[in-house]
Amino acid sequence: MQAFVMERVGETGMVEKEKPEAGPLDAILKPTKGLVCTSDCHTVHGALGERDDLTLGHEVVGIVEEVGSAVTRFEPGDRVAVGAITPDWNSEAAQDDHPSQSNGALGGWKFANVKDGVFQEYVHVNDADGNMAHVPDGVSDHEAAYTADMLSTGFAAAENADIPMGGTVAVFAQGPVGLMATKGARLQGAGEVIAVETVEKRQELAREYGADHVVDFAEGDPVEEIMSLTDGRGVDAAIEALGTDQTLKDCIKVTKPGGTVSNVGYHGDGEFRHIPREEWGVGMAEIDIVTDLCPGGGLRIRRMLRMLENDLVDPTKMTTHEFDFEEIETAFDLMDEKADDIIKPLVHFE
Amino acid sequence: MQAFVMERVGETGMVEKEKPEAGPLDAILKPTKGLVCTSDCHTVHGALGERDDLTLGHEVVGIVEEVGSAVTRFEPGDRVAVGAITPDWNSEAAQDDHPSQSNGALGGWKFANVKDGVFQEYVHVNDADGNMAHVPDGVSDHEAAYTADMLSTGFAAAENADIPMGGTVAVFAQGPVGLMATKGARLQGAGEVIAVETVEKRQELAREYGADHVVDFAEGDPVEEIMSLTDGRGVDAAIEALGTDQTLKDCIKVTKPGGTVSNVGYHGDGEFRHIPREEWGVGMAEIDIVTDLCPGGGLRIRRMLRMLENDLVDPTKMTTHEFDFEEIETAFDLMDEKADDIIKPLVHFE
Amino acid sequence: MQAFVMERVGETGMVEKEKPEAGPLDAILKPTKGLVCTSDCHTVHGALGERDDLTLGHEVVGIVEEVGSAVTRFEPGDRVAVGAITPDWNSEAAQDDHPSQSNGALGGWKFANVKDGVFQEYVHVNDADGNMAHVPDGVSDHEAAYTADMLSTGFAAAENADIPMGGTVAVFAQGPVGLMATKGARLQGAGEVIAVETVEKRQELAREYGADHVVDFAEGDPVEEIMSLTDGRGVDAAIEALGTDQTLKDCIKVTKPGGTVSNVGYHGDGEFRHIPREEWGVGMAEIDIVTDLCPGGGLRIRRMLRMLENDLVDPTKMTTHEFDFEEIETAFDLMDEKADDIIKPLVHFE
Amino acid sequence: MQAFVMERVGETGMVEKEKPEAGPLDAILKPTKGLVCTSDCHTVHGALGERDDLTLGHEVVGIVEEVGSAVTRFEPGDRVAVGAITPDWNSEAAQDDHPSQSNGALGGWKFANVKDGVFQEYVHVNDADGNMAHVPDGVSDHEAAYTADMLSTGFAAAENADIPMGGTVAVFAQGPVGLMATKGARLQGAGEVIAVETVEKRQELAREYGADHVVDFAEGDPVEEIMSLTDGRGVDAAIEALGTDQTLKDCIKVTKPGGTVSNVGYHGDGEFRHIPREEWGVGMAEIDIVTDLCPGGGLRIRRMLRMLENDLVDPTKMTTHEFDFEEIETAFDLMDEKADDIIKPLVHFE
Repeated sequence: MQAFVMERVGETGMVEKEKPEAGPLDAILKPTKGLVCTSDCHTVHGALGERDDLTLGHEVVGIVEEVGSAVTRFEPGDRVAVGAITPDWNSEAAQDDHPSQSNGALGGWKFANVKDGVFQEYVHVNDADGNMAHVPDGVSDHEAAYTADMLSTGFAAAENADIPMGGTVAVFAQGPVGLMATKGARLQGAGEVIAVETVEKRQELAREYGADHVVDFAEGDPVEEIMSLTDGRGVDAAIEALGTDQTLKDCIKVTKPGGTVSNVGYHGDGEFRHIPREEWGVGMAEIDIVTDLCPGGGLRIRRMLRMLENDLVDPTKMTTHEFDFEEIETAFDLMDEKADDIIKPLVHFE
Repeated sequence: MQAFVMERVGETGMVEKEKPEAGPLDAILKPTKGLVCTSDCHTVHGALGERDDLTLGHEVVGIVEEVGSAVTRFEPGDRVAVGAITPDWNSEAAQDDHPSQSNGALGGWKFANVKDGVFQEYVHVNDADGNMAHVPDGVSDHEAAYTADMLSTGFAAAENADIPMGGTVAVFAQGPVGLMATKGARLQGAGEVIAVETVEKRQELAREYGADHVVDFAEGDPVEEIMSLTDGRGVDAAIEALGTDQTLKDCIKVTKPGGTVSNVGYHGDGEFRHIPREEWGVGMAEIDIVTDLCPGGGLRIRRMLRMLENDLVDPTKMTTHEFDFEEIETAFDLMDEKADDIIKPLVHFE
Repeated sequence: MQAFVMERVGETGMVEKEKPEAGPLDAILKPTKGLVCTSDCHTVHGALGERDDLTLGHEVVGIVEEVGSAVTRFEPGDRVAVGAITPDWNSEAAQDDHPSQSNGALGGWKFANVKDGVFQEYVHVNDADGNMAHVPDGVSDHEAAYTADMLSTGFAAAENADIPMGGTVAVFAQGPVGLMATKGARLQGAGEVIAVETVEKRQELAREYGADHVVDFAEGDPVEEIMSLTDGRGVDAAIEALGTDQTLKDCIKVTKPGGTVSNVGYHGDGEFRHIPREEWGVGMAEIDIVTDLCPGGGLRIRRMLRMLENDLVDPTKMTTHEFDFEEIETAFDLMDEKADDIIKPLVHFE
Repeated sequence: MQAFVMERVGETGMVEKEKPEAGPLDAILKPTKGLVCTSDCHTVHGALGERDDLTLGHEVVGIVEEVGSAVTRFEPGDRVAVGAITPDWNSEAAQDDHPSQSNGALGGWKFANVKDGVFQEYVHVNDADGNMAHVPDGVSDHEAAYTADMLSTGFAAAENADIPMGGTVAVFAQGPVGLMATKGARLQGAGEVIAVETVEKRQELAREYGADHVVDFAEGDPVEEIMSLTDGRGVDAAIEALGTDQTLKDCIKVTKPGGTVSNVGYHGDGEFRHIPREEWGVGMAEIDIVTDLCPGGGLRIRRMLRMLENDLVDPTKMTTHEFDFEEIETAFDLMDEKADDIIKPLVHFE
């Protein structure tokens, strides 16, 4: 079968691979729609170290081709979504309510990290009963593909932010995760949402997803702007959805004493992140800094699908480009370069 | 000044009273708009015991007439909202994060309970700095009056329900608090909201405020219907917004193991409420039963006002009737009898 | 092999059974020490319905005899403890942080409920990697057997009670679970612990495990006594460790507004439990009623074992009787009748 | 009256001041025992900027000399303790459950910061009803003085660490706050407590207060040692009780994915604190970094006093030196230099 892989650091390509086989608890999925994520670009640039013909991709929807002997909730022909993160549910970390960290830091992240990802003709899903969900009628494959990472991660950013009903939230960066964090803040009861972004198309989407204000960091210091918008109080919560030192520092600076900084950005380089000591209240201002890796699991995906089923969010507005699987390298390159105002490219497998 | 009072159990009337005076921390408010609440009907029927010419009412917006010498955040002429509950903020319960219980069970509830309420020409507000909030431009007095109790209580029902993002919620009864709980569930990330109600006008509003399904208990057992809608799983959370034994029992029956029953209904009579032992998992199904009295305080009210300012909810749809202050007895009687499809009557003071 | 079974409702006996076999994820354990629990008495009296030669018992320590092909953390010869509750870790409820409710209410409870229990010569453990823990050197089998249920359940009662540091706690009934709840309250920062009990031996142990006061309900109304001990305030948290209507009602009555009632008692009969409406603050006093079924899983058991390893609790003080496996029916009968001041009987398998 | 003041940055001395007066909500206290805190040394060295004859000290017990007209819970002659932090209870931050941040970052911290501290013959307490507590019979003034800061702050470090029952905790630095954090971890259910310290006297006390292991950072990298003690897993929670960049970094490094870093150290200098990016899981390992400023308030102090009353902790073991008020400058200098193995000096006012 065909697979779009990271051949080695810096190089991608289409290669021929053996079709995967299902162990007793696993399933094999035939993808229908997928999405390309910036994380894959990081991986190809070496953020996770060297890889050898590792299949890329972690956002996918498809049809069950085969299930292992012990799988009870799914059968061939089922239309299913699967999380980007597929935890080991009996691990210590999962028992401790941190399934994404099962078997070590970020250990629930398997696709395109420790095993082949989803950009191939057949996809292996570990613990199918635990990690897949049926896609309800009325939810398209296109929509459902967004549950794997964009909805789950973006919404988690808002859930972790501990937003009081009617509280104020700043969301730094409006890429697809940031946009879903903006929407997520609204769905967690935020009274005022301030989005930080400079790209016009993303600013527009931020407003559509519920931002009350958009602060353009290219036109002035966003910290000053946010402090001004909050009468000098700072926000109840700030969400970091980019992964840079500057945005994390700014998050801390705009968060009021007693507030929360919720990070979902992937911090890809540098030895340290910097906490500004004074704005952090010299360690005593009760500003929490919390982080998350995309929650996975069948229950999580089912809940995300329910939100699509009941029209609470339309993530397909973020789909700026579409490609056939054969053209996936073009999709990947556009995403890598953030060219052509791309936000999210959809991949058709058939 | 004129005051609409509970003369004694079972009797109301308009009487002449002395204008109240402000202590050092207090304010005197001149009401502009108020709302009549069913709680007042309970009070007049004797739920709190005998009273002697106690002014009724706890939902009001007005103009500051006078402030005490130690008040720093308000001055005469300010347009303000005040919570139905006006806690003693330095009490033990408030320090323990339960301000509504300050100085004893339900002790933060002062208006029309332990002191004169708001249906009089001048209203006394204890701890003005702690319990009032400025009404922002762009929020009408009519809208703002809903923050005192309806928004604060209804939303609290949803906040306490511990709704997972994309989770399922049933809201029993769609009076004004139940309607705001329905809206609140949506604002707390519910993926599916099931409203229980039989009155057509309230069913319609439930749908407008976000219910995905409306279950009419007059047409069949709501427990069966809800279990069917959730594929036999039960809901993640059930909200009790009526205050009867039957609805509380039903809430427990429809809540899945590990879920939450959130009560905001005022249970006005009977010696006991009944927990169905088996559906409660013989005491081990990890179904929490939690309760709340309307959260008050300047911060809470400010956050509720922010949600109005940013158009996240329009409570005025619930205003079915309007009266001048002179006609308030008619408003009260209609509310007491739930006549003429009344949901909420607005009172104009000037 | 020999097995001590519930032959049918009301009858127990020793029967011959086939040695169980391990599926790929399972283990077979050879028990060394076990404990008899009152829950088994409930079961034999029909609380869970009819059973046919079901092996009893759910508290055990032993040596691994055999592991399935997919088990990675254990091997034959390992000395291990296993929880009374052995959840399905990839189930929806476990993903929702309620593993004891996996696959339905109380569904994580398998031993002596939906499959043979531990009172037989070889014990089958489902999901061995997820549900077993190595017993550290320095912890005896006798001590370790207490982790399965008594420590896990008793401590959970205290953990769920949301005790503020220095807060007040009342624990109703000082059977083995209640005694561990008393100790657990101390280990959760309680400033004052009031134990309710009438049996002298249990009163003594309550004091040894940390109770500051013991209230004898046979000598007066425990509610009055507890209100008096707390200057009329009521306790921050009350723990129900018996499972009767009276004690649950009393828990609600002694809990202050804003406090928590934590139930771990197994409520074995009656159609309803009764919430006293007035003391419950007519549904608005912010008294939470929460429940739990013994938390299981390898991580939980490992943490309980660590507390034994570091001498934070000595549960063997509760062992009032010892029997060989051949004499287990005598142990069971004593436990059923609560005769001879029995608290907990230890069973030696070899 | 005599007052021990910070005359200006770098200089202290005894000066004569006017006796303070009580406003309507305030009290005047005549101190009996006080404690000197390292924070005062920071202040004198300029950490908070310039001050002009500001009285030092924030840990005190005394006798009520006078109360304001609106004070209801105290009267002259009462023996009382008062928190180091005396919040404004009706402020927004207090209403948001962060009273220590009332009226701005660290705004609840008034003594020896924004008003005269407690090292003078008469002490002014704002909001006496909200901020004082009666000392129970059986608790000495010496003991009670520790509730103001050492118990409240040290225990808060453990409360915020979200320690699972039986979990592992590392406490960096065993000064008086660190020692109380070690004790606090034990009182929050820690199964294993690892104290980091090099001073022998403090190591001994750490063991007395419950540390299972003491890691001497002068004898090797404490990170390596702690990882080794936890079989490479890292701890469930790390507590920072010193306030340096190195210890905060080490806390992050030893905390497992999904764990918590709880900071109570006062970070007195430097522009930034550094988060090690990789050990922080590139922003996705779900390690929370939380902070606290000593919780104050009458309820908090009452709960701390209850723990003394019931002999759950003996803080007087930390008192290494004693001085009369006249000798306080010597006490201060010793504390500043950490000379003579000083841990905590007690000051006798009479």
